Amino acid sequence: MRTTVGIVGAGPAGLMLALLLQREGIDTVVLEARSRAHVEQRVRAGLMEQWARDLMIEIGAGARLVREGLVHNGIRLSFDGRLHAIDFRRLVGRIVTIYDQKEVVKDLIGLLLARGGRILFEAEAIGLGGLAGPAPVIRFRDGDAVRELVCDVVAGCDGFHGISRASIPDGVLTVYERGYPFGWLGILSESPPPADELIYAAHDRGFALFSMRSPTLSRLYLQCAPDEDVSRWPDARIFDELAARLGGSCPLARGRVLQKGVTSMRSVVVEPMQHGRLFLAGDAAHIQPPTGAKGMNLAFADVVVLARALAAWTRTGRTDALDAYSRVCLDRVWKAQRFSWFMTQLLHRFPDETAFDRRRRQADLVDLVGSAAAATALAENYSGLPLAAAALEAAAPFSVSG
Amino acid sequence: MRTTVGIVGAGPAGLMLALLLQREGIDTVVLEARSRAHVEQRVRAGLMEQWARDLMIEIGAGARLVREGLVHNGIRLSFDGRLHAIDFRRLVGRIVTIYDQKEVVKDLIGLLLARGGRILFEAEAIGLGGLAGPAPVIRFRDGDAVRELVCDVVAGCDGFHGISRASIPDGVLTVYERGYPFGWLGILSESPPPADELIYAAHDRGFALFSMRSPTLSRLYLQCAPDEDVSRWPDARIFDELAARLGGSCPLARGRVLQKGVTSMRSVVVEPMQHGRLFLAGDAAHIQPPTGAKGMNLAFADVVVLARALAAWTRTGRTDALDAYSRVCLDRVWKAQRFSWFMTQLLHRFPDETAFDRRRRQADLVDLVGSAAAATALAENYSGLPLAAAALEAAAPFSVSG
Repeated sequence: MRTTVGIVGAGPAGLMLALLLQREGIDTVVLEARSRAHVEQRVRAGLMEQWARDLMIEIGAGARLVREGLVHNGIRLSFDGRLHAIDFRRLVGRIVTIYDQKEVVKDLIGLLLARGGRILFEAEAIGLGGLAGPAPVIRFRDGDAVRELVCDVVAGCDGFHGISRASIPDGVLTVYERGYPFGWLGILSESPPPADELIYAAHDRGFALFSMRSPTLSRLYLQCAPDEDVSRWPDARIFDELAARLGGSCPLARGRVLQKGVTSMRSVVVEPMQHGRLFLAGDAAHIQPPTGAKGMNLAFADVVVLARALAAWTRTGRTDALDAYSRVCLDRVWKAQRFSWFMTQLLHRFPDETAFDRRRRQADLVDLVGSAAAATALAENYSGLPLAAAALEAAAPFSVSG
Repeated sequence: MRTTVGIVGAGPAGLMLALLLQREGIDTVVLEARSRAHVEQRVRAGLMEQWARDLMIEIGAGARLVREGLVHNGIRLSFDGRLHAIDFRRLVGRIVTIYDQKEVVKDLIGLLLARGGRILFEAEAIGLGGLAGPAPVIRFRDGDAVRELVCDVVAGCDGFHGISRASIPDGVLTVYERGYPFGWLGILSESPPPADELIYAAHDRGFALFSMRSPTLSRLYLQCAPDEDVSRWPDARIFDELAARLGGSCPLARGRVLQKGVTSMRSVVVEPMQHGRLFLAGDAAHIQPPTGAKGMNLAFADVVVLARALAAWTRTGRTDALDAYSRVCLDRVWKAQRFSWFMTQLLHRFPDETAFDRRRRQADLVDLVGSAAAATALAENYSGLPLAAAALEAAAPFSVSG
């Protein structure tokens, strides 16, 4: 099998890349290890920055997002027993949209297939070869057989544990990493969320996040030990703890718990995001703690840059934009990392922190809700920085609003 | 001896308090352990927020400050081999003034004595008594004798190692504290500073600060070990290291080194700032790392609140404003602490930091110089937040611009 761009992974990065390239007339094949049903049900958070929502609409995959996505003008901070609004729309003229990642995946798969795109499900990539040459090869399982996809370029969109990054020889990548001494215990609950926007609650007992899938389905998180044993958390204890961390700032409805699990927290960036003809995008190159809600947005930002660069290359043969891919993406990646760290250190209780540190964090929160400048700095990062000028300069027939 | 307000310590806090109270017709005596010559030569940094400069002028002590003080529109950040300006005047319409603390002390002593104020030098307070009652007593040395000053109120303005805070019984104060794994090696050099504003330099080798006393006298600092041995730092090594940490962002002139010493770094807040008839102000209640340049400014802010409260009390007999003293001051103190921490963690290299942390700080710096909102948040804190409304509400015949 032959294609121009072989894409490993049918997550938001790989699928959006395929659609962007299809519009450029560039042939792609998406290889996905799991079944279509599996990837369409994979639970991931879903918060879209303004420009990412606009991109979904522009590419033609936005109908259901516009209909079903929850538009939020901002977020609430809960501390000291009160809710404080940070109004993105007022501060920076931008909104965010809650729309589950699996719904994004459904919409993108549906559109790509309807437009004649090729996705091979249950086609696990097991090796990449020839990355240094002009015709890299992806070996993948097809039932009991192993087949090869020969490409001009490979896009590694297969997440942090995928084969793409692992195929890069030792010593090529620099890995920047930071662990956190906590995780998130998350539940999906059949109950209305406590507010119509996300609540980030800072409390001496630890952080809690009150998110939602719909007006009747809450997604709720508690800061917990990194290796927390879920069996120690019967539903009633979870709700008691969530209510305690709201500190009376608003009432919390309880409901039937549909899912329960622990999310680990890590910050990782690998540099560069390119090796020969392999380009990494999304979680394959960087992961961040979920506090900043950047995962899917960074994945989209990467593939917008990559699609423009590949379009310029196939049109002109010039490699400037491809050569700049890693640098342009990493600029945004580090901005997202610093913001995710900022939110994480601001809101969580650290096991080794002193009483001074707690009071200092409290003062940070007071500053955020009392200073228009501080709130604006948060709003512009949370709702999505404009795509880098360098990303937009590459000639391409589509525009993305910043 | 008898007075209304006994003031322990002739630093900026105690002297400004005496002048503010004198204008209210309230009698004070300032007790200072050291000689006048000593306190007028004591080396401390001196950066005045806009409103603190205005206060000096308004109280009548501003003539030399206006003539000799160095007005700065902002600061420079040095990183990645370049200087980046943060222009306070443009961002928030405020300036800062470099004017040594010992010059402030000289001006305030001169004015207070000229107006008939009482300062006893070489009068070391050795004990406070009767703080719970209506007539507290300060015992102090007068040559070989021990005398007593009987007051209505005691103002503890005698710094972090003074007797005032130490006189409060165990268990009354909560102490919030944080150490830092570094200090500052500072020199005074007969050489022009590298820029006409302060340069805060972040470098992989550590932090450096390029400040000045005058256009020909530089005050230069290097992040060092907390217990750094100054003898290991001959002048040439200091200048080499300072130049290295500028990373080529601008040239550095060398000069004769007049002073050399190590400053330790600590954040401390005690709560409350009142015990009975004793009110703590300035360093007696809180110290912060010098990175935020808040020391003298917080001292002035405390005594403005205290003077207004004492004026209201002596006029009306009502204690509301005095009762609110600690709460009103601590609000500003914690804002200053969080800002000092922000600047400290942003600019210093921490011994246990990972490569990720370093890149994250780098991204913070890029954000600061690239986002008007982030720069404004820094500017409004550095150049001085407005005095709290609660401080200004107390009826008093003087106004302080915010």
